[in-house]
Amino acid sequence: MSHTAFYISDGTAITAEVIGHATLSQYPIEIEHITSPFIETEAQALHLCDQINIRYKTTGNRPFVFFTFVEKAFKRLIKQTDSICFDVLSPFTKEITQVLNIEPTPKLHRTHSIHEESYDHRIGAMNYALANDDGQTTQHYDDADVILVGVSRSGKTPTSLYLALQYGIKAANYPFIEDDMDDLKLSNDLKQNKKKIFGLTIEPARLAAIRHERYANSKYASIRQCRMELREVERMYKKNKIPYINTTHFSVEEISAKVISEMGLERHKY
Amino acid sequence: MSHTAFYISDGTAITAEVIGHATLSQYPIEIEHITSPFIETEAQALHLCDQINIRYKTTGNRPFVFFTFVEKAFKRLIKQTDSICFDVLSPFTKEITQVLNIEPTPKLHRTHSIHEESYDHRIGAMNYALANDDGQTTQHYDDADVILVGVSRSGKTPTSLYLALQYGIKAANYPFIEDDMDDLKLSNDLKQNKKKIFGLTIEPARLAAIRHERYANSKYASIRQCRMELREVERMYKKNKIPYINTTHFSVEEISAKVISEMGLERHKY
Repeated sequence: MSHTAFYISDGTAITAEVIGHATLSQYPIEIEHITSPFIETEAQALHLCDQINIRYKTTGNRPFVFFTFVEKAFKRLIKQTDSICFDVLSPFTKEITQVLNIEPTPKLHRTHSIHEESYDHRIGAMNYALANDDGQTTQHYDDADVILVGVSRSGKTPTSLYLALQYGIKAANYPFIEDDMDDLKLSNDLKQNKKKIFGLTIEPARLAAIRHERYANSKYASIRQCRMELREVERMYKKNKIPYINTTHFSVEEISAKVISEMGLERHKY
Repeated sequence: MSHTAFYISDGTAITAEVIGHATLSQYPIEIEHITSPFIETEAQALHLCDQINIRYKTTGNRPFVFFTFVEKAFKRLIKQTDSICFDVLSPFTKEITQVLNIEPTPKLHRTHSIHEESYDHRIGAMNYALANDDGQTTQHYDDADVILVGVSRSGKTPTSLYLALQYGIKAANYPFIEDDMDDLKLSNDLKQNKKKIFGLTIEPARLAAIRHERYANSKYASIRQCRMELREVERMYKKNKIPYINTTHFSVEEISAKVISEMGLERHKY
């Protein structure tokens, strides 16, 4: 008894994937996931219908199909397959269309495309994050939306890049290193943009494990060193009233959502 | 007449945002978007209900509300507000529950969290992408899932980082620069992993515009230089049978979806 999920679209299929995956992850079943983006011709649509029907025959289970399509003819084709089939935006458009008294106009490449106004923001923000990663320059903090600070390997770089690529938010990041620890304080460049600073911290054991993967058995990765650095950094956050979170149990998505929410950052993309 | 959309969750609210935004973008109306992630207490839920009701009073329009919640009491509270309200996964779970004859078990932080198996893959892939960005090292291509090649500013770096952060795919990238152009060929490190190579190209006018933003009026940004580099690179792709796409009209999401699909890459995250 094996299950299959298809995510299908004339675009990237990202919307279908997000909805389908979030829905199916609530059931304790094994699923093979198949994404079919950029279905743009009838031949492609028909080929896909064959694949779906073959899956039903070979597994005995009707595949789950989550799709978004602009082209109505393709919707009809997919709906005729031996599948449990969801046109993922239709449950919402019905009521909204009624309330607004406006018909929806599905447009190709409306979401997740280069035609979004936000697009150049995101590429600009990514270039900013790379150029201002890991304290390599500290002169451009006036341009930052947020400056993430923390010890080495506390999650600053992935969070900065995620904020840039997903939301067009310009995030610089600055590491506090061993040499700073005797007298930990904010540099002048940081002080001048203090309202933009957001601190990350992490549990010492988790930090030591992450550092061990990079430099096994080093002083850098020792639990004693990790404890010391984190203690000093957290003390400094408190002293300077810098908002901070402990990232130990959070993903990049969760850390980013918390940074945006706590700092009241403006997003350039939804 | 102004409209408001709320995206609400006890997690990141990413699922609610993706669905809500994709749905609402089909209507020609101005919308203010408000995301409220990590609603975890009754007090927070009640405060949010007030905000929604106040919006209705101040704008005269019932706000659109897209939510995912594990806690049923919070669902009930949100549903009682003066809003057009969608429990975004429920249209799909009803039918699936019937078909599978298994009740869904919504779990907190199931999607977009550090508890996904894929999480370490994604951070590892991001570190790989940063270390193997822009041809700075070419010795680790054996570990790559894909190697993106192309001229400077054709979209290699954002695509590499997006593949890593979203899907846990290890993407190196290698630039072909002016000095290579007299006799453009694949280096030995590239040749040894030829099956992993995917080429990017772009229209000369768009490339020149992007390069101008960085180095205005340089030879590097001249349309003549851009045309020459792209002509040489495309000729080389064809000669070596390297699959490639023109990125001019595509977003990072679209380029990534095409690379995954054309190269048959395995994703570590859905």
